[in-house]
Amino acid sequence: MADYSDRHFRPDTGPFDFERGNAAVEVIFPALQAESRLGVSESGSDASLVADFTMALEVTWFDAVAPYYYPAKGIYSDLGHRPKSECNNRNKNVAVLYASYRILNDRLPHGRDDWRKMMESVGLNPDDDSEDKETPAGIGNLAARGMIEARADDGMNRLGYEGRKYHPQPYRDYTGFQPVNTAFELHDPSHWQPNVNPYGNGVFTVQHAVTPQMRLATPFTFSDPSKFKLEPPVNSDVRNIEAYRKQADEVLAASAGLTDRQKVLAELFNDKFFTLGVIAGTTALRTKPMEIGEFVQYLATVEVAIFDAAIVDWHYKALYHSVRPFSAIRYLYGDKPVTAWGGPGKGTVHDITGNEWQSYLTTPDHPEYPSVSTSLCGAYTQAARLLLGGDEINSEIHVKAGSSVVEPGITPVEDMTLSWDTWTDLSADCGMSRHWGGVHFRSAISNVSEFATQIGTRAYEFMQEHLEP
Amino acid sequence: MADYSDRHFRPDTGPFDFERGNAAVEVIFPALQAESRLGVSESGSDASLVADFTMALEVTWFDAVAPYYYPAKGIYSDLGHRPKSECNNRNKNVAVLYASYRILNDRLPHGRDDWRKMMESVGLNPDDDSEDKETPAGIGNLAARGMIEARADDGMNRLGYEGRKYHPQPYRDYTGFQPVNTAFELHDPSHWQPNVNPYGNGVFTVQHAVTPQMRLATPFTFSDPSKFKLEPPVNSDVRNIEAYRKQADEVLAASAGLTDRQKVLAELFNDKFFTLGVIAGTTALRTKPMEIGEFVQYLATVEVAIFDAAIVDWHYKALYHSVRPFSAIRYLYGDKPVTAWGGPGKGTVHDITGNEWQSYLTTPDHPEYPSVSTSLCGAYTQAARLLLGGDEINSEIHVKAGSSVVEPGITPVEDMTLSWDTWTDLSADCGMSRHWGGVHFRSAISNVSEFATQIGTRAYEFMQEHLEP
Repeated sequence: MADYSDRHFRPDTGPFDFERGNAAVEVIFPALQAESRLGVSESGSDASLVADFTMALEVTWFDAVAPYYYPAKGIYSDLGHRPKSECNNRNKNVAVLYASYRILNDRLPHGRDDWRKMMESVGLNPDDDSEDKETPAGIGNLAARGMIEARADDGMNRLGYEGRKYHPQPYRDYTGFQPVNTAFELHDPSHWQPNVNPYGNGVFTVQHAVTPQMRLATPFTFSDPSKFKLEPPVNSDVRNIEAYRKQADEVLAASAGLTDRQKVLAELFNDKFFTLGVIAGTTALRTKPMEIGEFVQYLATVEVAIFDAAIVDWHYKALYHSVRPFSAIRYLYGDKPVTAWGGPGKGTVHDITGNEWQSYLTTPDHPEYPSVSTSLCGAYTQAARLLLGGDEINSEIHVKAGSSVVEPGITPVEDMTLSWDTWTDLSADCGMSRHWGGVHFRSAISNVSEFATQIGTRAYEFMQEHLEP
Repeated sequence: MADYSDRHFRPDTGPFDFERGNAAVEVIFPALQAESRLGVSESGSDASLVADFTMALEVTWFDAVAPYYYPAKGIYSDLGHRPKSECNNRNKNVAVLYASYRILNDRLPHGRDDWRKMMESVGLNPDDDSEDKETPAGIGNLAARGMIEARADDGMNRLGYEGRKYHPQPYRDYTGFQPVNTAFELHDPSHWQPNVNPYGNGVFTVQHAVTPQMRLATPFTFSDPSKFKLEPPVNSDVRNIEAYRKQADEVLAASAGLTDRQKVLAELFNDKFFTLGVIAGTTALRTKPMEIGEFVQYLATVEVAIFDAAIVDWHYKALYHSVRPFSAIRYLYGDKPVTAWGGPGKGTVHDITGNEWQSYLTTPDHPEYPSVSTSLCGAYTQAARLLLGGDEINSEIHVKAGSSVVEPGITPVEDMTLSWDTWTDLSADCGMSRHWGGVHFRSAISNVSEFATQIGTRAYEFMQEHLEP
């Protein structure tokens, strides 16, 4: 039973049981919580960075258990197969733990003391760097090496040396993406404008598009993101002024009508660690019991869907570099009053100006169209649907009164239980939460299901082909 | 004996002695260290924000001890005078502590639990909010109220409501300052360009000028910052291309020639909490023993000099909005190799391009001319010189090997002791450290001493007039 209020994923279990336990859920996710947030995305809102990190971790798990699932073959390593007598949960858990240890040290080296503790807490030797294909430690280590080497130069600029020899800038854009608007002037109201956000403590910064190179990253399941169809964002073209105004007014109406449930969902689905990790994980386990090997195969499938969908998102984000609601609302209403959410604890107000309006969620630092959250949820739930054998799920999330980050101590007014009966319902809430949160127009959400579903299906098929090559 | 390596100011003392002790040094600064960094400026490099915070705290101390120094009068409150029998260190320490408690809760409310602990640690009741002019607690509380009310609307936009009713943006610019260049294009090589800085974890942001409204803040010692003379930054005018290139080449030469001492000084003087707080404080106490009242009068004088000098700095920063070295070096050298510091642990390299070059210190988020550090050091050391009666000082700072933030574990190679014999020497190092750090041209440093000295003198005279009105 996941509880969103403490943002953690800590089942109540005793010492880790290698025979019956699940190292991903019981050991790795808990160790990861604080560190990965500090190292990857504190709020969990940086979708491309979270997707890149969790892909590396969880796809490696697939490769680490492949030798125990004849005739499965890893994505980035072919480590042969172990005899049936070794294909037990203990070995799978050990392989997953060593694989994780190596990936975590590679991707989040500042957490190295925590990763050592993680291994020591279950009695494993972190210094065992053997690459023996006949031991679970060696298999885990080799799976991690395979991932690290295969994706060392996959277009994400993870090491920061693209176009430079000195002063590496990990994950910095090297494609030359430039907004046509500045934070100060909306020269072209159809297109993306970087926003000014508080850095904290009186310092403000202007947004710089995050990882535009995600569109060039190596996909798992296709070669060219432009093959997926997506209608252009016609309502964001200011020459269609009626449609332009209508979609902005929809955002204002959503802002004015925000319910506690909508606020909670907006925050919950904004946190990609929680949405794509905890919800995807706990829902699957509640829906269909799985042992460690099946579970990491499920998560790896989900991650492939997410990573590939993000590539398509960034392809179209760069192509359309479409305007966010905050710019359109300022452009349309300026100093005129609008009816909208007035800020933490203010409820709906009628005298806030268009220029003052702010979305419930902080504006993400990339162009608007399409909605990443919607497509990632659409893609992964489709993969999950195919893998788990149906749309029906058993998903329940508890949220404590006042646990909101945007309105702490205020929202929600009462403890809340969120539940979904189908992946379809969950995915629909995930998409709409971006509209309620004020960061997306409707069509950025409603137009993505076709390509997201295709990618989810491809991810499922891709992984099945590796399970039975 | 101050040690820069742990960035703290923790004298080795036992339980606080109200009769002989110094609450500022022994209680408040230690309580403040972690909190003020998190709440004001983590690295201590945001000069205007640090100056605004420390001004509020330390000028209030002056008012809190004024009733014990007949005929002194507070800057923002006239609380009468206490009989001689009450003019003891105990009462001064108590008044300073209550004044601090109120200012800290006003300015850094998220630290409220720490401020309570600070009071309880010396046996004072944090809930004593009396405003009795006859008790030290009441005097401290009233001094804080005077400061808070007098500067509620002083132009700094500290509450964030300038120009808006909703979504307050504390300290955000409301003057409409806009750079003529973007982070992507240097349209005008003479003028300021916001830089792209890592926000951490793969997110990058574009600089937004910090507190341009500092030029409009209410000064203590003058009414119009334009009355202070400062030569225009003629060498930064690209039409004077020889001078433009010469001053950029000086920055490259400094970068190529960086010594351990220069790196340490660059980092030390970049940390305004340390420079303007710890160094200013410990140097004074080592140079001339002072009881708590005299010490806080000294610090308040220093803070008035610093705050007023910053106003003049920001006036000229807005007027000239002058180019930073990184832009000029990119403009002049582009993809051509230069000889310069190559990044942490790289030493001097000969094949780094102009575009790749980075200053040893992170570029501050405001225009280049004049150097704030230089003028703040110049102004406060002049005030200190006049107050303490001479230029000679006894100043010593210890720095542990490898304690650098830029080159951790590498710089300095050996433990280092920095010492200065005169305020003049200390101030000269403070200024030159900005050139070594690569964030200032020479003339931004060499041209400020005239106005900085004038402001230091004015601060001294202003405070003397309040001591003997």
